[in-house]
This record gives sequence, C-alpha cells and structure tokens, in this order.
Amino acid sequence: MQCSQDCLRAKDGNIYINYDLLKMHKQLILLLIGCLFSGFLYAQDWVPLFNGKNLKGWKKLSGKAEYQVKDGIITGISKTGTPNTFLVTEKEYDDFILEFEFKVDNGFNSGVQFRSQSLKEYNNGIVHGYQFEIDPSDKRLSGGVYDEARRGWLYHPLTANPDGKPAFENEVWNKARIEAIGNSIRTWINGVPCSNLWDDMTPKGFIALQVHSIGNDKAHEGKTVSWKNIRICTTNVAQFQTDVNIPEINCIANSLSSAEDKDGWALLWDGKTTDGWRGAKINTFPAKGWVIENGLLKVKKDSGGESANGGDIVTTKKYKNFILKFDFKITEGANSGVKYFVNTDLNQGEGSAIGCEFQILDDNKHPDAKLGVKGNRTVGSLYDLIPAIASKKFNIKEFNTGMIVVKDNKVEHWLNGVKVVEYERNNQMWNALVAYSKFKNWDNFGNAAEGHLLLQDHGDEVWFKNLKIKEL
Amino acid sequence: MQCSQDCLRAKDGNIYINYDLLKMHKQLILLLIGCLFSGFLYAQDWVPLFNGKNLKGWKKLSGKAEYQVKDGIITGISKTGTPNTFLVTEKEYDDFILEFEFKVDNGFNSGVQFRSQSLKEYNNGIVHGYQFEIDPSDKRLSGGVYDEARRGWLYHPLTANPDGKPAFENEVWNKARIEAIGNSIRTWINGVPCSNLWDDMTPKGFIALQVHSIGNDKAHEGKTVSWKNIRICTTNVAQFQTDVNIPEINCIANSLSSAEDKDGWALLWDGKTTDGWRGAKINTFPAKGWVIENGLLKVKKDSGGESANGGDIVTTKKYKNFILKFDFKITEGANSGVKYFVNTDLNQGEGSAIGCEFQILDDNKHPDAKLGVKGNRTVGSLYDLIPAIASKKFNIKEFNTGMIVVKDNKVEHWLNGVKVVEYERNNQMWNALVAYSKFKNWDNFGNAAEGHLLLQDHGDEVWFKNLKIKEL
Repeated sequence: MQCSQDCLRAKDGNIYINYDLLKMHKQLILLLIGCLFSGFLYAQDWVPLFNGKNLKGWKKLSGKAEYQVKDGIITGISKTGTPNTFLVTEKEYDDFILEFEFKVDNGFNSGVQFRSQSLKEYNNGIVHGYQFEIDPSDKRLSGGVYDEARRGWLYHPLTANPDGKPAFENEVWNKARIEAIGNSIRTWINGVPCSNLWDDMTPKGFIALQVHSIGNDKAHEGKTVSWKNIRICTTNVAQFQTDVNIPEINCIANSLSSAEDKDGWALLWDGKTTDGWRGAKINTFPAKGWVIENGLLKVKKDSGGESANGGDIVTTKKYKNFILKFDFKITEGANSGVKYFVNTDLNQGEGSAIGCEFQILDDNKHPDAKLGVKGNRTVGSLYDLIPAIASKKFNIKEFNTGMIVVKDNKVEHWLNGVKVVEYERNNQMWNALVAYSKFKNWDNFGNAAEGHLLLQDHGDEVWFKNLKIKEL
Repeated sequence: MQCSQDCLRAKDGNIYINYDLLKMHKQLILLLIGCLFSGFLYAQDWVPLFNGKNLKGWKKLSGKAEYQVKDGIITGISKTGTPNTFLVTEKEYDDFILEFEFKVDNGFNSGVQFRSQSLKEYNNGIVHGYQFEIDPSDKRLSGGVYDEARRGWLYHPLTANPDGKPAFENEVWNKARIEAIGNSIRTWINGVPCSNLWDDMTPKGFIALQVHSIGNDKAHEGKTVSWKNIRICTTNVAQFQTDVNIPEINCIANSLSSAEDKDGWALLWDGKTTDGWRGAKINTFPAKGWVIENGLLKVKKDSGGESANGGDIVTTKKYKNFILKFDFKITEGANSGVKYFVNTDLNQGEGSAIGCEFQILDDNKHPDAKLGVKGNRTVGSLYDLIPAIASKKFNIKEFNTGMIVVKDNKVEHWLNGVKVVEYERNNQMWNALVAYSKFKNWDNFGNAAEGHLLLQDHGDEVWFKNLKIKEL
C-alpha cells in the first residue's frame, strides 16, 4: 500500500477516495465503537461496604465480642461468656457479588453471613441464614455454605467439592468472593471455586461478620478474625456471574436448577401431582397406599406386604439409557425399592412388578437383610443378585440419595455419592447369576433394552422426593 | 558429473583414475555378481512329471478307469463297476513342491495323491496316503488334505480354513500347488492358500492322479478329470517354502510344529513321562489311577468318585495369562475336568482341588448334567457357575479340543473351535455369582492372579493328549 490517506485532493482539484484504506479504517472505527459500548454496558459498579475508618453502616447483634477498626481493617476479637456475635450491615441485599479479604487466627472459627436475618418471630431474633464459612482447622471447610441457626450445612466442602479444600491459606490474607444471584449461590477463595448452591429459602437479607462464640474457653480468648477491602456490586450482577465446573447442590425440593435444566435433566415427579405415574398393574394412579404431601411422595404404612396395599407405581414412560436420581427416607424396619427395566406386562398376579431393583431397606431391622446371599438384599444392592459394597453410607434418620446409571448393558447403583453396585447385563455371566436368583423363572430377566421406572409399595412408610432423570 | 569414463589417458600420457566413477561402478559390479550368485543358488529346478505325449513314468493301480493323453493333457474317465483308479508315478518323492493344472466335470470327485503308497501288507495293496482333494461340489472341499484309505480328513477346508473355499472355480482350469517339506504340508489353488498341515506319518511315496469310483452309477459314467503342466521341484525346496497365514493343523500327537514353536507355544506334557506334573495333594505323581500309554494320558476307571483313586494331577508350575489347549476323549457316562487358577494349599481334605473348572462330562449319561442350575455342569461349562452355550459341539466317540484363554480377569472356554463360555472375574458380579455356587465358602474364589493347571480324576476313564500352553 503506497498511499497514506483515505482521500486525496489530486492536482486536478478533485477528491479521490482510496476505498481500501477506508475499508481498513472502518473496521478499526467499528472496533472502537464496540469497545466504547461494551465498556458502557459492562463496567462493574463496586461499592465499599466498609469505609476503612469506622463502623458506619454496621451494627452489632446477638453477642458481646468486640470489633476494632485500625489501618483499614475490621478485627473481631473473641470473648468468653457470650454467644456468637455479628457485625451486621444496616442495609439488606438480594442479588449481589461480594468480595472481601479475611485473615483468621489458627484454632478459631468464623464466617460471613449473607441474605441473613434476625427476626423476633424466629427463635427470639437469632441471626440465621447463609454463612460463608471461615474455618482454619485441619478440616478446611472455608468457602463452604452453612445455614446458620437453621438447616446446617448446605454445601459441605468435604463431600460436595473436595477440590476446593486447598484454596484457603492459614495465617495470611485470603480473598473471598460470593455471588448470590437469583437462586444461584457460589463462593470462591483466592480464585478457587468452593461452593455452588441452588436455593431459594431467603432471597434477601443483611451481610454480617461473625465472631464465633468460644463458650467459656479462656485459652481461646483474644483470638481474632479480620476483614478488609469489603466491596459489593448490586447492579447488573447477572452479567458478571461466573461459570464454575464444580458440582452443584440443588436445595429446592422437586426443582431443576438452571444448570440441571441446561444439562438435560428432567423432573420425574413434579412434587405435587401424580402426573407421569400410574399403578404398575392399573392404568390410573392407585386410589390408596400413596400420599403426596409437603413435596414428598409417601408410601403409606400398611401390613409390610409386597404390593399389598396401593401397589407399586411406575412411570408412564419407558426409559433406556439414563441417570436416575432419587432422594428417599425410610422408617425403622422399612422395605421399599426403586426398579428399572420394568415390564408391567409380566406378573399380573400378586407381588411386585418384575424388573431390576435398587433395594431400599433398613438393614438393621428388616429380616430380609439377613436373607438372600451374602448381603444381596441390603440397601443399595441389586436385589437378590449383587450385594452393595460393605463400605456404603446410609443414614436412616435422613434423606439419602440414590442414583442409577444405565448405559446400554452397563449399570451402576450409587448411594449417597458412593458407587455401591456395578454390573454388565445381557451376557453369559449375568444370565448365570439370574439363573441362581429368585428371578430365574422370568425369561431373559434384566436384559430388556428399556423399561418403566418403579417405586415399590412394600407396606412400610417411606418418602421419596427429587426424582430426576437425565436421558443419555 | 561431467566425466564419462573411469580412467582417462591425459595429454601428458599418464592415466588418471576418476575414483568417484569407479566407486559407482563398483557398486554396480557387486550387484551384478550378487544377482549371478543368487541366481545360481536360488534358481528353481522344475522337472516335468508328464512329458505331454504319453504316460511314460506312470503306471495304473487299483481300478480300471481309463486315462487318455491328448494335446498335452491327461484325462481320466470315470467308469462303472471299478474301485478308485490311480495313475501313479514310478518314482517316489519325499520333499517336493508340485504344481499342476486341473479341470473337473461338475458332479465328479477326484484328487491327487502324494507321499502315498500301495503295500501288500496294508489292506492288500490299497492306494493310501495324502490326497490333495478335488471337489467341484457345493461343499467346495478342493485343496483340502484327505488321508486316503487311512485317517480320513486331515485338513478339512470347511472347519479349518473356510477362507480357502472360494479358490476353486468350476468348469475351468485351476492351478494347484503342493509343498511337502519335512513335516509341513501346504496346498494352494489359484494362488489362494487352502491347507496348512503338520504331519509325519509317511515321509515319502508316489504321486498319483485319482479317478474316483462311481460305483454302478451309470449317470456318472464318462465324467472326466484332466491334468496338464504337471511339474515338480525336489532340490533346495526349503528355500522356496511359502509362508502362509492360514490356521495350521498339527497331526503329530504331543508335538510342537515349527510354527507353534516360533509362536511361543510349549508342551505341557511330553507324551511319555510324568515330567512337570504331580498329584494335587502330594509332591510326586500318583502311584495309581493314571496311566501313560500310546501318547495318551489316561484317567483309569474306578468308582466314579471325585479324586478317590489316584487323585487330581496338577502342573508343578503356576500360570497367569495363557492359552491352554487340550484334546480329550471320554467314555460313556464319564466325568472329568480341567481346572485353572488352582491353589493346592486349599482343600487338603477329601474331594477335588479348588479352582475354576472347564467341565468334562457325558451330558447325556452322567447325572451331574441335570444337577446344578440351567446346565452349568455340562461339558465345556464353567463348573457350577456358567453354562456352556447350547449350540456347543461335542463328540463322545472322538477326541475333542478344549481351549482356555486367560487374559488377566477375562476368561474364555472354547470347545472344538466354538467359544462356549466367556466371563470376567474379580468384580462384583463374579463374586455375587460365586456366592450362589458350591464355591461360596472358598474365600475370593477364582480371583487369584495365577494358579496351577489341573486334570481331574473323577474315577471315570478319560484320555488326554496334546496339552499345549502359550503364556501371554
């Protein structure tokens, strides 16, 4: 290119346009305009929550621990004989991105509340709600989300996201980030994602700096936790939401988070109606034996017999390759189960419909646990065929999460995040195993390409919720 | 290079040598000498067996069919009322490569004998020995090796090498090649390898053109088979031996062919001694119950009890990953077995040693076939665990070939060339299956990394031979 101007006034007095150069400059101009607009649209508005000099905008709640301000730092100091103390923002916040730095003495515990509340009608004004955990102990729970004075752990770093554990460093300043946007709550420490929660219990509340109670432990008196550079963004926060690759915990019963929805999950039960379900041996939902209440699908207590009351229920649809998740809670001595590859045309007589069963049982109190062979009728087992591993985890007092993964002939049972059964069907060894079991007289048992999903009525009180499926 | 001569007589009268050119020419000269020598060493000496004019060098044996010579072609013509007729070379041949062309009428059958004999002491002079099969029928057995008037099929194209079947073409001239070099006998039709045999029964004999008997079937009278361009090479034949990729059949009992040897196979039993074997529960070979005779390892008939006479025998060595081949023949109602992953330290009491068992049984006459579950105690099955497939092939009157393939946790049973059992051990499904079987009380049954190989004494007469192993 030999010219250096877009237009030239030539010797003849006319203006000649160099179109090549113009085209090049046009692109540059468009780029500049683009930058300008995006800057205008996306510049993040940060507002300091702490003025660096005093506690203007904050108030103390609940306890008697002291907060000092010095050199742009708020320091909370532990004190015996007082419950948890909170330094609380006077303002409330709903959707926000919060950043702050914190440093904590070894052996102490603290946290930062958000969307939290103190209401006379709730436990006489106790500060409660989401807490960004600060924990310098060997457990390294910092960055987890704890529901203070309410539901306890919502996102426990050890079980939900062990990868986030090393993020926190002892004895130095750590940088925290909390994104609370709609139902999505995410946390980071020093740039490492720690929690990824989906919850809607309290959409709005104050932010508060906790000085944890030390009871009457004199040895811990004077331990400190410090904060600085506390800033919040409350405008256009959705635009600044950060994607994460860590597991999400959805605390909203019978719902799909936006991530689950995007990932192809579907609700197998809507939490309210009988839509999508019918009795295994009838075309309608059973008139008795099953109750829907408070977002739970309940098998009613009866005689403890197999399909003797309302009978099993099945999905109206059949499923082939899928991940099925379900939360279940049982009563003492209860028996139930989740079946798959169910063919409702088989066994029109008494008893349960025919299919592979993720066994649900109180291993300690129900006699079936001792029957079968080497534990193949215990909770999580492939009923009467393959025992769940001995190191499985089950809590009879709480909801447990079951998961069944089917990829063609490969099947897995998971119980509370642990793979407890793994097998491959449609082969000689599978058929040989079935031949020994109580299913030996059902032709080609377990080898169907697809089938209904089933919840078993075994006449014991059992609750289900969060029935979700992802078809593969 | 600008010069064109190696040496130049220069103007000064001296001779100057161009060393570059000389070097180049030297290589050329060496190449020429090489070709000359290799030609001298490797040029193949072909001798015609048929002079194209008359049957000089040939004589007729056995039957009365006619052979005519015309236009360089020998034509044999079928005739009723005569047995097989053979046009036999006067000379005998041991190691050779034979080539000829042949053409046969549809619906007829013929063959070319080699290393064959007619001896007064053998069946009153009947022509017997190796025959290159000529078969234009739909079975397409041409190119197979049949042991005429002696052992029958040695290399049956249908079972041993179906890929060779399409080589032969009806109604046209086909080109045949036979390589009989040492124990190796190989055949081709139109360049396609058909047979690959290892045998040593008759190392030398005549070559003969067969006109097959047609009995008294007038309809087949006058059918013809023709040969031309019959030539043989008998010098330096080993140098001209052709490699083939088709399966080899080794007919020499308890031997390794050179191909097997090269492929890593070893004899597990030498055919004569007890070397490499001991009693499962003793350090020596059992004093009774087992007999070695005529290249066979025999379990003696006793009460039919398990390890009640001589007891099981095991290899002194342990094996981990391997292909084990064994030929076995049973008597009516007999029971025996071949076990692997055997731990001889277990079960020092009564009964058989503990390991996975390739079951050997007369399914029709032994009661155990009806016991167990869905056929898991029948011949070829993984005893009491996995039934052999229903389409298995077994011949109670002949030797059958068993094969066990172990690659870490993957195991296969083969019976007469058919895979009858396939499984994977060391996993939940395997352990669940074992838990149902009679092995449930042996800890970790079948999961050992290695073990002895075992031949079972079940008190019934059973023969073994050709025990060969290839470690993987």
